[in-house]
Amino acid sequence: MKAFVKSQRAPGGELRTVPDPRPGPHEVKIEVEATSICGTDVHIWEWNSWAEGRVKRLPMVLGHEVCGKVVELGRDVQALQIGDHVSAETHIADGTCYQCRTGRMHICENVQVFGVDRDGVFAEYSVLPEINAWKNDPKLDPSLASVQEPLGNAVHCLLPEDTVEDLAGKDVLVTGCGPIGLLAIPVAKALGAGRVIATEVNPLRISLAKKMGADRVVNPKEEGARTAQVVRDYVGGQGVDVALEMSGHPSSLPLVFESLKPGGRVSLLGLFSGPVSLNFDDAVIIKAARIQGIFGRRMFDTWYTVKGLLAHPSFREKMEQIITHRMPIAQLPEAMDLLTSLQAAKISLLPRW
Amino acid sequence: MKAFVKSQRAPGGELRTVPDPRPGPHEVKIEVEATSICGTDVHIWEWNSWAEGRVKRLPMVLGHEVCGKVVELGRDVQALQIGDHVSAETHIADGTCYQCRTGRMHICENVQVFGVDRDGVFAEYSVLPEINAWKNDPKLDPSLASVQEPLGNAVHCLLPEDTVEDLAGKDVLVTGCGPIGLLAIPVAKALGAGRVIATEVNPLRISLAKKMGADRVVNPKEEGARTAQVVRDYVGGQGVDVALEMSGHPSSLPLVFESLKPGGRVSLLGLFSGPVSLNFDDAVIIKAARIQGIFGRRMFDTWYTVKGLLAHPSFREKMEQIITHRMPIAQLPEAMDLLTSLQAAKISLLPRW
Amino acid sequence: MKAFVKSQRAPGGELRTVPDPRPGPHEVKIEVEATSICGTDVHIWEWNSWAEGRVKRLPMVLGHEVCGKVVELGRDVQALQIGDHVSAETHIADGTCYQCRTGRMHICENVQVFGVDRDGVFAEYSVLPEINAWKNDPKLDPSLASVQEPLGNAVHCLLPEDTVEDLAGKDVLVTGCGPIGLLAIPVAKALGAGRVIATEVNPLRISLAKKMGADRVVNPKEEGARTAQVVRDYVGGQGVDVALEMSGHPSSLPLVFESLKPGGRVSLLGLFSGPVSLNFDDAVIIKAARIQGIFGRRMFDTWYTVKGLLAHPSFREKMEQIITHRMPIAQLPEAMDLLTSLQAAKISLLPRW
Amino acid sequence: MKAFVKSQRAPGGELRTVPDPRPGPHEVKIEVEATSICGTDVHIWEWNSWAEGRVKRLPMVLGHEVCGKVVELGRDVQALQIGDHVSAETHIADGTCYQCRTGRMHICENVQVFGVDRDGVFAEYSVLPEINAWKNDPKLDPSLASVQEPLGNAVHCLLPEDTVEDLAGKDVLVTGCGPIGLLAIPVAKALGAGRVIATEVNPLRISLAKKMGADRVVNPKEEGARTAQVVRDYVGGQGVDVALEMSGHPSSLPLVFESLKPGGRVSLLGLFSGPVSLNFDDAVIIKAARIQGIFGRRMFDTWYTVKGLLAHPSFREKMEQIITHRMPIAQLPEAMDLLTSLQAAKISLLPRW
Repeated sequence: MKAFVKSQRAPGGELRTVPDPRPGPHEVKIEVEATSICGTDVHIWEWNSWAEGRVKRLPMVLGHEVCGKVVELGRDVQALQIGDHVSAETHIADGTCYQCRTGRMHICENVQVFGVDRDGVFAEYSVLPEINAWKNDPKLDPSLASVQEPLGNAVHCLLPEDTVEDLAGKDVLVTGCGPIGLLAIPVAKALGAGRVIATEVNPLRISLAKKMGADRVVNPKEEGARTAQVVRDYVGGQGVDVALEMSGHPSSLPLVFESLKPGGRVSLLGLFSGPVSLNFDDAVIIKAARIQGIFGRRMFDTWYTVKGLLAHPSFREKMEQIITHRMPIAQLPEAMDLLTSLQAAKISLLPRW
Repeated sequence: MKAFVKSQRAPGGELRTVPDPRPGPHEVKIEVEATSICGTDVHIWEWNSWAEGRVKRLPMVLGHEVCGKVVELGRDVQALQIGDHVSAETHIADGTCYQCRTGRMHICENVQVFGVDRDGVFAEYSVLPEINAWKNDPKLDPSLASVQEPLGNAVHCLLPEDTVEDLAGKDVLVTGCGPIGLLAIPVAKALGAGRVIATEVNPLRISLAKKMGADRVVNPKEEGARTAQVVRDYVGGQGVDVALEMSGHPSSLPLVFESLKPGGRVSLLGLFSGPVSLNFDDAVIIKAARIQGIFGRRMFDTWYTVKGLLAHPSFREKMEQIITHRMPIAQLPEAMDLLTSLQAAKISLLPRW
Repeated sequence: MKAFVKSQRAPGGELRTVPDPRPGPHEVKIEVEATSICGTDVHIWEWNSWAEGRVKRLPMVLGHEVCGKVVELGRDVQALQIGDHVSAETHIADGTCYQCRTGRMHICENVQVFGVDRDGVFAEYSVLPEINAWKNDPKLDPSLASVQEPLGNAVHCLLPEDTVEDLAGKDVLVTGCGPIGLLAIPVAKALGAGRVIATEVNPLRISLAKKMGADRVVNPKEEGARTAQVVRDYVGGQGVDVALEMSGHPSSLPLVFESLKPGGRVSLLGLFSGPVSLNFDDAVIIKAARIQGIFGRRMFDTWYTVKGLLAHPSFREKMEQIITHRMPIAQLPEAMDLLTSLQAAKISLLPRW
Repeated sequence: MKAFVKSQRAPGGELRTVPDPRPGPHEVKIEVEATSICGTDVHIWEWNSWAEGRVKRLPMVLGHEVCGKVVELGRDVQALQIGDHVSAETHIADGTCYQCRTGRMHICENVQVFGVDRDGVFAEYSVLPEINAWKNDPKLDPSLASVQEPLGNAVHCLLPEDTVEDLAGKDVLVTGCGPIGLLAIPVAKALGAGRVIATEVNPLRISLAKKMGADRVVNPKEEGARTAQVVRDYVGGQGVDVALEMSGHPSSLPLVFESLKPGGRVSLLGLFSGPVSLNFDDAVIIKAARIQGIFGRRMFDTWYTVKGLLAHPSFREKMEQIITHRMPIAQLPEAMDLLTSLQAAKISLLPRW
């Protein structure tokens, strides 16, 4: 089969012909119907310092966001059938560690990730453990189906635990409008949030944030040190109830807490790539703030939530706006360029080789 | 001032002239701009057995749902000003008992209720403790503002605790489409529910349930013993995730549990007026169901949620459909007749005497 | 190997020689070091109406509570080694259904139970799926290790969800002092409960409840209709904060709610074997009570809790008091007699054939 | 009456004769039976930079931890009587702000604190709002009763929300053994924690931490950069489940997260007096850690918990060990010296002038 493979510990990747993967006893083989590109894929493509430290095993097929059709079943597969349309939860958990045994498979002690630790999905075929294959409504657009995984991240940021303080009528701040930040805007609205405020500096993303339903988009480049004040003034009172840090920009961290109501909660998803200084006394302690670090998405609660939300046509329409480009997968290098130059939000890759 | 007063332990009430109420140190006096009629008011008007047992002190001004303008401030009032438009949380808590001290003012050990334990709001003026006066957006329609209280009940049924399993993408059943059941339908939708199914037998209420956004309304009179099966078939899988019992009809109780997914949760609001038999083994224990008894609404979390929801124009429009009649308060007896004959959902009474 | 087998749909069981079980790819074979008898085993031994309806497949090796030593590993087993001492979580989940995928393996849609749906542990050897084998401290007394499973039920009754209202300083009522009720007493204490009150009518169990640390044991046979009043008087105020119904006796259900503080929570574990009538208005709705049906125990959170508690020597000593008899497994019929005549609490069976 | 008063914006305080305070309508006057010294009192006595910025109004009677006897009732007081023994919740909330209305009185927008914002309790008499007066068991030792307030902080650190992941069997790290850190050790144990590990450098506090029941005390001065490894090795596996930062020392912050199991939770109480740098990527985000800033203690849930715990004689005995000195209040300056030179943990001041 054809696949995009990384074989050198250096930038880029190669379109190659490799053997078809074969499913193990509890795995299924899928024919890829659509994939999409995540920031992680860009880091590995560019081979930044994170990728250098994280990726162990090459050569490796790249990519992890995917929707495909089941074409072969492993010997012991029970819950799926040939012809099912599935998306992939890309965190493969061991199922037996402390975290897996206590409802936190997403932080499994021995987690493996497609396209990071083992062969991924930028290929004609891929194999998924049965439990990682999420059965879709066959009528769901494959490009949208592939984007369910980052959509799950957005849900997880907003609802990080089994039981959480609800979002009903609450004001939400999203700092940073990359794909997950953008997705979080309509998700927050769909879960009953009051006002959703976003911060972003890139014009394309600012425009997309508005399209996705942000009540207000603030540009920290324009507002500078006043940014938190602008957010607080907009919502009135003591600040926002919930804040999602999606930018990974160190200046966003104090911004988040200065914009936050005492007793509010913060989800941190964006990686800062280095230490960040914070006045914990005012930002966290005296403010009685709650902070949740976000890694992956709760398995599989977030997938059920995503399924429920995607059942509403108006939500699907909103979601589709984030897919700014649909391209043949053969143009993966061009797609990577569009992303690194911030000319695209989400790119869907279709199986045209 | 003019007021509708109950002076006899018997059906009915009288339009009388009584002295204006005077605010205590922590109270405000309001000029009534709109009131609305709750099922409790109907019970007291009709003087059923519940009313006979519950109401101690007559004569008493009736009514509790209200919106009004502050016209006088008690000596120690801090948080309100003359001219503020307020609605009433009608549960007056003592503030010092165990329940009040642990965040459950709504089940205060010494709770008093307007129009049940002390003078209510079917009058030209009323007095409210400062803490019970909820400051409204002055642009909010007074009829809608008055209905915030039962709307809070609907919120409380859906989100009974500080931290709850979210509703995102979950299927919700509402058994019984009286006013609170009807209100619960768009609230569930606004909080991200997947599908909302309602049961009801009355044609007006069936039609209103559809208008309020129910995905499916099932008539137990028509479906009989198949009703739970119809609900389960509609949502697929093991049943609904969340069920709200709003009818107080004994046959709804087994229906609720037969329609419920194992591990699901149930809020019980409708009073059954007598013991009900249930097979707890199958309905609750083996099903690992969770049940929450609902009394009042969490103070004041539910009010903030309601405020956040009412900020969305589309939600306000939905809400207004429940107000089937707007009448001069002088026609209270006619309004009571409309309600007891099930020809109305919510009736708003305007201060025309 | 030797095993106690049920081969007829009738009371009793037979000591037989049957082939050794062989582990599948993800299973381990254990040599039984201790087993213990659960109420379920008694029901199946006696072949009551529940057993007649529930048990499908005979002949079947009986029993499910067990501690054993791993003597053979299936091909794909990763987390265990020959020689490990393990106990069994006896609910075998499918791992792929909605419940399993959302952290509720204990109510798996396709759950199978040892000694109910497939061969159990009243035998020289047994096989367990790797994930169901809980690795013990090798120094833990096998009789105690076998009892961890019902101890997990007690934990689950007290802490039914991931995040629950804590027990710190709260008063707890346990109605019915069978083995799980007895175990719940010291668990409640170990988790910080204030006072623990138990109800029981059997003299042996009353005496054991006191040994297990109950602050007060009330005998409903002696107190009659005053029982709830006696409980409320003992704790003062509005009643207990938490109540565990462990008796399955219909008269205990109203007792539980009459003893409960408004806003309190109830776990229902005891099966009533038929419908029970309850005044939901006073018991649940106006009282704003919360009820949790208990089936199995959360997997595997409860096992970690049990492990943490058993690390304290004083807790182990308390636990051992519940094992009133240690007998050779060859005397299983005599052990069953002791249990049905209520002359024993927990019986540990040792591998002497 | 006699009182210790701060009249200059400078170190120290004066023993003076001032007018007796008079209770307002909702206040009670108490005769002080015991007070104790909090770190905040030391800061104000020493007049450090925090005190200079925080304290607005002088002269002011110092002190806030107290137990006293009610000697006079304000006009509208309902829940207390002359002769009641009460302790003080020292955060005076306005009762009407967003935080107060949603169960977070402890972070009231307009909070006032005794001995910080208004006259405190280092005096013969004091006045308390009725709601801030916590009624004690009259047999409780006044010195212990006075210490309930910091004990409530320890409870709040361990159980920061209404519903939290329980502590049952969980391993807990306490960094910094000042009074609240020391109190947290037996509280964690009483709530079912598995092992409790403390870090501390001061010899007196190390010895007290052991007396209070710490399973292991680690001295970061001795272990240096290996400290987190020592903690992880002691508990085994991935680290502690819960960590409480009580030291306010910047080096403790990374220590806390390096010692923490992924998915674990952290309460931050110690103020750092300046920005602290942290690698949020590894410490918080990838680790999926949860952080709760701690300010005050939940009102009044923590008081009920404390009451329940103090009902156990063994817990009271443990608690008394933290009171290293009982002195006449006239010796307040000497007591302050003992605390600043770290020669005392908690000092109880008795009303001998």
